Amino acid sequence: MGPVALLVQKFGGTSVGDPERMRAVAAHVARTVRDGNQVVVVISAMGKETDDLLRIAAEVSETRPGREMDMLVTAGERKAMALLCMAIADTGIEAESFTGSQAGFLTDSTYRNAKIVDVKPSRVVEALAAGRVAVVGGAQGVSPEANVTFLGRGGSDTTAVALAHALGADSCELYTDVTGVFTTDPRIVPNARKMEKISFDELLEMTANGCPKPAMRSVEFARTHGVDLHVRSAFTWETGTIVTKEDDTMEQAIVSAVVHDADEAKVTIGGVADRPGIAALMFRALADSNINVDLIVQNTSDHGVTDISFTVPHSELDAALAICEQHTADIGATRVKGDPAIARVSVVGAGMKSHPGVAATVFETLAANDINIEMIATSAIRVSCVVAEADVQRAVVALHDAFGLADGPVYVD
Amino acid sequence: MGPVALLVQKFGGTSVGDPERMRAVAAHVARTVRDGNQVVVVISAMGKETDDLLRIAAEVSETRPGREMDMLVTAGERKAMALLCMAIADTGIEAESFTGSQAGFLTDSTYRNAKIVDVKPSRVVEALAAGRVAVVGGAQGVSPEANVTFLGRGGSDTTAVALAHALGADSCELYTDVTGVFTTDPRIVPNARKMEKISFDELLEMTANGCPKPAMRSVEFARTHGVDLHVRSAFTWETGTIVTKEDDTMEQAIVSAVVHDADEAKVTIGGVADRPGIAALMFRALADSNINVDLIVQNTSDHGVTDISFTVPHSELDAALAICEQHTADIGATRVKGDPAIARVSVVGAGMKSHPGVAATVFETLAANDINIEMIATSAIRVSCVVAEADVQRAVVALHDAFGLADGPVYVD
Repeated sequence: MGPVALLVQKFGGTSVGDPERMRAVAAHVARTVRDGNQVVVVISAMGKETDDLLRIAAEVSETRPGREMDMLVTAGERKAMALLCMAIADTGIEAESFTGSQAGFLTDSTYRNAKIVDVKPSRVVEALAAGRVAVVGGAQGVSPEANVTFLGRGGSDTTAVALAHALGADSCELYTDVTGVFTTDPRIVPNARKMEKISFDELLEMTANGCPKPAMRSVEFARTHGVDLHVRSAFTWETGTIVTKEDDTMEQAIVSAVVHDADEAKVTIGGVADRPGIAALMFRALADSNINVDLIVQNTSDHGVTDISFTVPHSELDAALAICEQHTADIGATRVKGDPAIARVSVVGAGMKSHPGVAATVFETLAANDINIEMIATSAIRVSCVVAEADVQRAVVALHDAFGLADGPVYVD
Repeated sequence: MGPVALLVQKFGGTSVGDPERMRAVAAHVARTVRDGNQVVVVISAMGKETDDLLRIAAEVSETRPGREMDMLVTAGERKAMALLCMAIADTGIEAESFTGSQAGFLTDSTYRNAKIVDVKPSRVVEALAAGRVAVVGGAQGVSPEANVTFLGRGGSDTTAVALAHALGADSCELYTDVTGVFTTDPRIVPNARKMEKISFDELLEMTANGCPKPAMRSVEFARTHGVDLHVRSAFTWETGTIVTKEDDTMEQAIVSAVVHDADEAKVTIGGVADRPGIAALMFRALADSNINVDLIVQNTSDHGVTDISFTVPHSELDAALAICEQHTADIGATRVKGDPAIARVSVVGAGMKSHPGVAATVFETLAANDINIEMIATSAIRVSCVVAEADVQRAVVALHDAFGLADGPVYVD
């Protein structure tokens, strides 16, 4: 048994989806305590409960004021945290549940998507000092006006990271239904490898590109405050992947992972007049309609006209096309075209910053496999290509193989 | 339009059982506001939600600590109150929900069945002053240790009455699925009459005897603090029955109502030694096993031995019999007998205090209908008879008729 450590353990909805899962999580918490650790649990609503609450709200009301939506939605985590405390009590260990307010989560008053202003977890500290497990409802807090606030979908991850930071916890464990962060989707590439370690920056590029891992906001918070994360399984309980600060002394993998996202559609606006303000006009109109534009690519102007392409979620394609068509005349465009059958594949790696040639390898690999690239976008540590949806799985397999990811990372010299 | 009144309107689980009912209740609240009134709503959990929460707790845990049970169960009212506020907002009227804690319900720390210590509804008062409807979660409060507490089943009625008292409300309306308090069960006696008015004492005798009306504790609270109640329908919205203090100047009906309760079983212990402490021993043992003994009848001793009979809920008959049989030797009893096929019929009326002969009429009426009386118990304003279950509906019809209740009350001279 090692020295006493203070651990924050966060469990998502799937991990506590039914009474059996509740008891399995309680047993794991009890094991952790019996190993000599202090444990603070952050819990999400059970299974699809948050969706159920949103659905009944839509059935009851058209206006759905934010203050009341937050009161409603946070009821899901209250239920889950009370039930988990009961299950922990059955193991002979005392546990106390705390709402966001009781746990000291002070937020602003932005209902539905409140920002944490401060965390003053004195009741959590007292519970730990008394030898108890503290179970905190995720994604909730209290506003300056003493109203209940909701941090938004995925807010439980943020709760866990902020609490780990405020308590100076030794580890922030994010339990989920996968065993860690993989070099690519194991359903597509059977020899995908679970990574021992990954940097915040790399994970951010991955979560932004369809990797179903911790909420971006929580990873950004963890990076800013230097809270190491441990992404691991609530089903097998094996060691997962550590997410930590990229360190100059740490070896940097040239390419860490290949990720893909098939829930995208492409819009191309052709023959656009190439003068200032055109792009601004179009993307302001899309933003005003709450359309989530992701990749944007504009080619160099040719004879005073240019093409602009961008991607949006599948579900927003029709709305995006309608808006673009409304503005066709204003921007002097000749045509608007939508393509739902696309997907994005990206390679991510902190080491590529100092290692030229990754993009070239990506393009060569796709070409060698007869996969046409429709759009390209890059960041310092990522190369993304939009390809036909039918080609994406082959692209993932080819790139994972090309960078030798199954065998372990290739480090920068 | 009359002068501005401050009304507390309490809605039970059936009244807000689904989205359609939520909107119907919101429309009624909006009508009441548009008629020039200030409205505070107290709401129970939707439909069978509290039962659902108790069931999942039983599936998750064997120990179920009280603090966590209260956190769990009060989530039901939170959900309902937020949804009702949204539905009210749809009508163009602002509404704010308040938990028990936010509404100023300070309680003791008796989890599962907390007692109200004080009500300081400053946030409710502020909401009203700002022209809003306040929607308060029923049956909940906060303990001195800042933990969430539950007032117990039926606690929403108590919340409504206590809030009406604390606010000095003009009326406390308890909305339910019946149109008021009837002279007897209209399903048995088609010409049962809805009473315009009834005294607290009469209603207490009725609720204690199977009348499905407000929780006894809330009626006792209302009587103590002089809060008039209006029991009425959340489905037809018609005027219901006023429950008020019995006044010396008020005419007192000799008999107001006939009520019955078929969920009882009888235990008879025969040949019990007639010496001090025998009854105490037996009923302490039953109480220690949480058996709810109701009517107790002991006949005058004959030759040093006596019979003791009592009633218990059907579901507790087997347990009660087992305990009695364990103690047969100690109390020198010769036999223990259980009878599940009994029921109780009672006539209730504040005027019978000063009007002898009601009991005689009851006995004569039952005799004339060939209904055998197995046990008799009386209070100042009630005569109860235990009869065979098969006879109880005939007994109700005969007594309702004998006292002429369909035609209106007979008052004391």
